[in-house]
Parts: sequence; structure tokens; C-alpha cells
Amino acid sequence: MRTVGVIGLGLIGGSLALDLRRRGFASRTLGVEKDSVAAQAALTIGLVDEVTDLDTCVKKADIIVLAVPVGAAVKLVTQILDRIGDNQIVIDVCSTKEQICRATQYHPRRGQFVSTHPMAGTEYSGPWAAQPGLFDGRACIFCDSEESDPQAVRKIEEMYAVLNMRPLYMRAAQHDVHTAYVSHISHVTSFALALTVLDKEKDEKHIFDLASGGFSSTVRLAKSNADMWVPILTQNHDNVLHVMDTYIEKMKAFRDAVATYDEDKIRELITEANKIKKILR
Amino acid sequence: MRTVGVIGLGLIGGSLALDLRRRGFASRTLGVEKDSVAAQAALTIGLVDEVTDLDTCVKKADIIVLAVPVGAAVKLVTQILDRIGDNQIVIDVCSTKEQICRATQYHPRRGQFVSTHPMAGTEYSGPWAAQPGLFDGRACIFCDSEESDPQAVRKIEEMYAVLNMRPLYMRAAQHDVHTAYVSHISHVTSFALALTVLDKEKDEKHIFDLASGGFSSTVRLAKSNADMWVPILTQNHDNVLHVMDTYIEKMKAFRDAVATYDEDKIRELITEANKIKKILR
Repeated sequence: MRTVGVIGLGLIGGSLALDLRRRGFASRTLGVEKDSVAAQAALTIGLVDEVTDLDTCVKKADIIVLAVPVGAAVKLVTQILDRIGDNQIVIDVCSTKEQICRATQYHPRRGQFVSTHPMAGTEYSGPWAAQPGLFDGRACIFCDSEESDPQAVRKIEEMYAVLNMRPLYMRAAQHDVHTAYVSHISHVTSFALALTVLDKEKDEKHIFDLASGGFSSTVRLAKSNADMWVPILTQNHDNVLHVMDTYIEKMKAFRDAVATYDEDKIRELITEANKIKKILR
Repeated sequence: MRTVGVIGLGLIGGSLALDLRRRGFASRTLGVEKDSVAAQAALTIGLVDEVTDLDTCVKKADIIVLAVPVGAAVKLVTQILDRIGDNQIVIDVCSTKEQICRATQYHPRRGQFVSTHPMAGTEYSGPWAAQPGLFDGRACIFCDSEESDPQAVRKIEEMYAVLNMRPLYMRAAQHDVHTAYVSHISHVTSFALALTVLDKEKDEKHIFDLASGGFSSTVRLAKSNADMWVPILTQNHDNVLHVMDTYIEKMKAFRDAVATYDEDKIRELITEANKIKKILR
């Protein structure tokens, strides 16, 4: 008998609750969701067994999962840690880790907090976007796990094993640098691409007609939700800014090569970029 | 009995030859491929019935398809038109159209040339990348088709109907503006993204581990081939440059909003970018 309480029934929280219950890790799931439409939808879809208020969830759940945008999570985490008993565990699943780890650093119940980032998702949000199997085969990063009690970490490792995730371990600061490169900048480049095309291409029919798979794939992250991404970009400010500046430099190098019809330089840049093939299938 | 000759047995030429033969539009397919390894592979895979030299292909094929990079195509097209008889048709399948249409403009056999752009593809290249069904359900753009003989256009429309493509008609110049927005800039943003990540993230293991679906999807076009993309970017120089400049502006607006922690501005930009949802599923 184990109750998992999920705070925030969006794509990640909803998918997690769904699979933990279906796969038997949780015997009961509670959900907390401040948006009443989303809460009702989560119940109707069957993402959780019960929607409760925060107090009830914090009281009843053996494992409490914080799955709200990272700005809200940083504020909530210590309030929740203040109220749990000795056998409860709190985890977060946020996309930036330095601030939430710093916020909990000196909390007397720090050992009962496990900071994780399951690297899975889609460009959609809300309980409607939740899906079974979302996490299967993906990586899950445990941050600063040496600050957590070993038995708490073990329990959460077990939980992610049920979701078929590969565990990785790193410092929160290191996590935030890496994700700036392999996730945050991708979103920003997609947002900028959407803005560029929307700005110039007033004839929407043509965007749709001419868009082949390539455009759809580079622009799809531009559908991502502002509630989630505003706090990610501001919390991971320094890293994101650094990567954006590098990106703008690369873009300008490309632009200048095109501007001057410098075919050798364009070829060199493309050939260099092609090396991504060796890393990503 | 109809022979289709394809010059350039890469992703597009190979896939086209394959389906035209399988679906009965061509009773025989000839291929021309200057790279001998690719030529042998195309035969082994069974993309065409026979690999021939250019002369034989131009002599024997009822429909000659130019499927080489656009720089080479612009040079070849008039040489081929010089040598065809009254009942032959030449088409190209290149990604930029203004220069090839301009090169053929005053040719006595202009009527027998149909300039098309089947909007399909993947980030892979070569005969190995060819696949059945590549074109199904995609759009095919006919450029300056009023300069072609109506019966030649009709024949090529029939051909693309067999490939299940939706025909669209526009001026070559208009095509090049639109594709700069919905295809060419996507490739450049992907190349720049790959360059950014490769430049900074020396620890390749981590790129691979942390890359969730979002990164893979935004960066996948960076695998695209330089032989194809150098001429596209230089031939569509003015449009591409214009779009790149707009893109860099948008990126800088984003960068400045992040730099100043301007959450309202970041939210505004993301919400504006989200409008792409209405256009692309």
C-alpha cells in the first residue's frame, strides 16, 4: 500500500500518476490541481484516483511529487517539507535544478527531498496531454542526490525504474548547464523561428501548404507553454543567456557566409554541423 | 510503355523512380548517377531498372527528371533541352526555382520543361535514403507552369497524382520567398543549433543522454547534406538573407528579454510564437 500524491496534473504530473498506478508502484494516487477545469479533466480521464486539496495530499501521500512550473515549485517545496512526517518523501520533476536545490539546502528535512528531472515530454501541456509510456526508455537525472537520505533516493530510483527510466546523477549546477544546451536553447530557437515565420508570412494558407516535415519538426517546440517556459528561462538565466549568445554568433557566421556568397565557408559550417550525426541517431 | 529517366539517384530521385515504377506510371526506369558507388547501390537496392550514361538517358526517356543539386541542375537543364525530341518532357525537382526558370526562359524547348518542387524529404541523402511512399500526401509546387505546354503540364500532373501529391501553382519568385520561410531557414537554424551544441558540449556522452525528443527534433535537419544545401542557400540568397536577418532580430529580442529578466516580455514572445499552433498541427 503506497499513496503517491502529485501536485500539478499537467503533462508530466498526469503521465507520471497514470503509469505509477497502472504499473502497481502506487496503490492509490492523489492529485492537486488549482485549475478546476484541469482538475475535473484529470479525474474524467482517470489520471488520478482522487483530486484533493494540498493539505490532504501532504498529509496522506507517502511520496509527494511536485510537478508544477519551476517558479511555483521553488516556493512550495520548503512549505511542504515543513509539514511532512518522518516517513514521507518529496520529489520535484522540474526542468531547472539549481534554484530548487538551493532553496532546500539547509532545510532540516533536506534528506527527505529528492530532486529529479525525468527528461521526457512533448510540446503539449495540461492533463489532456498526459499519456501512458511517456517516460519509457528516457533518462532521469537525479540532482545533488548525495544531499538526500540514501533510502529516500533508493525508493525514488525504484519508482523511476517502474517508469523504465535510466538514472543519471549530477550536480544541480551541472544539470542546468547541460539542459541549457540540449533543451532550453532548442525551445528558444523554435520560438524565434515561429515568430519569424508568423511575422512575415501573413498568408497562413501557404505556411501550411508548403511546410514539409522539416519545418514542422524544427518549429514544433514553439507550441510549448509560457507558464512552464518563462520560469525555466529566468531561473536558468546565466546558462541560457550564454548559450543564446553563442547561438547568435553561429547564426551570424552563417549569415555572413551567405551574404558574401562564400560557398566554401557555408560548406565548412554545414559539414561541421553534420557531426551531430555521430552523436544523435 | 513509358520510360522515365532520373538524373541523380539520391533521396528524391531514387524515391521518385521507385514509386513511379512500382505504381505503374513508368514501365521502365533509367538512372544516371556520377558517383559509381551510389550508382551500384541504386541498382542493388532496385531503385531503377538500369543505370545508363546521360546521353542514353536523354535519348531513351520519355520523361527526364533532373534530381541533382540545384547548382548542377541549372547548368544541365539547357544542355538537355538542346538534345530532346518533340515528344520528350524534362522536369526538375529542385528546392529553389527562380534561377532554373530564368535559365530556361528563352529556350526554344521551354514548353517541354516543367519546373516542380515536390515538398518531401528527410535529413538523409543518397540512394540509401530513398524510400517508397516518400511523397504521399505532400504538396508539389509547379512553378511558372504557364510557360510550359499545357499537355506537358498535364502529363506531369498525372505523374505526381500517382505519387499522391497535391499540386500547387505559383511563380518561381513567389516559391523562393515562401520556401525561404518554411524550409530554408529551418535548416539554417538547425545547423546553427548543432554548431552551438557541438562547440560547447565537448562531453558527447551527455548530449546523447540528456537529449530528449525536443532537441533531436530541432536539430535533425543539421544532418542535411552540404552538396544540396550550399547551392540552395546561395541561389536563394536574397530571400534567405532577409529571413535570416529577421530571425536574428527575433532571437535578439528574446535574448534581451532573458538578459533583463523581463518575464512579461518573454511571456509575450512565447504566447505570440504559440500562434503557430493554429497553422500547424
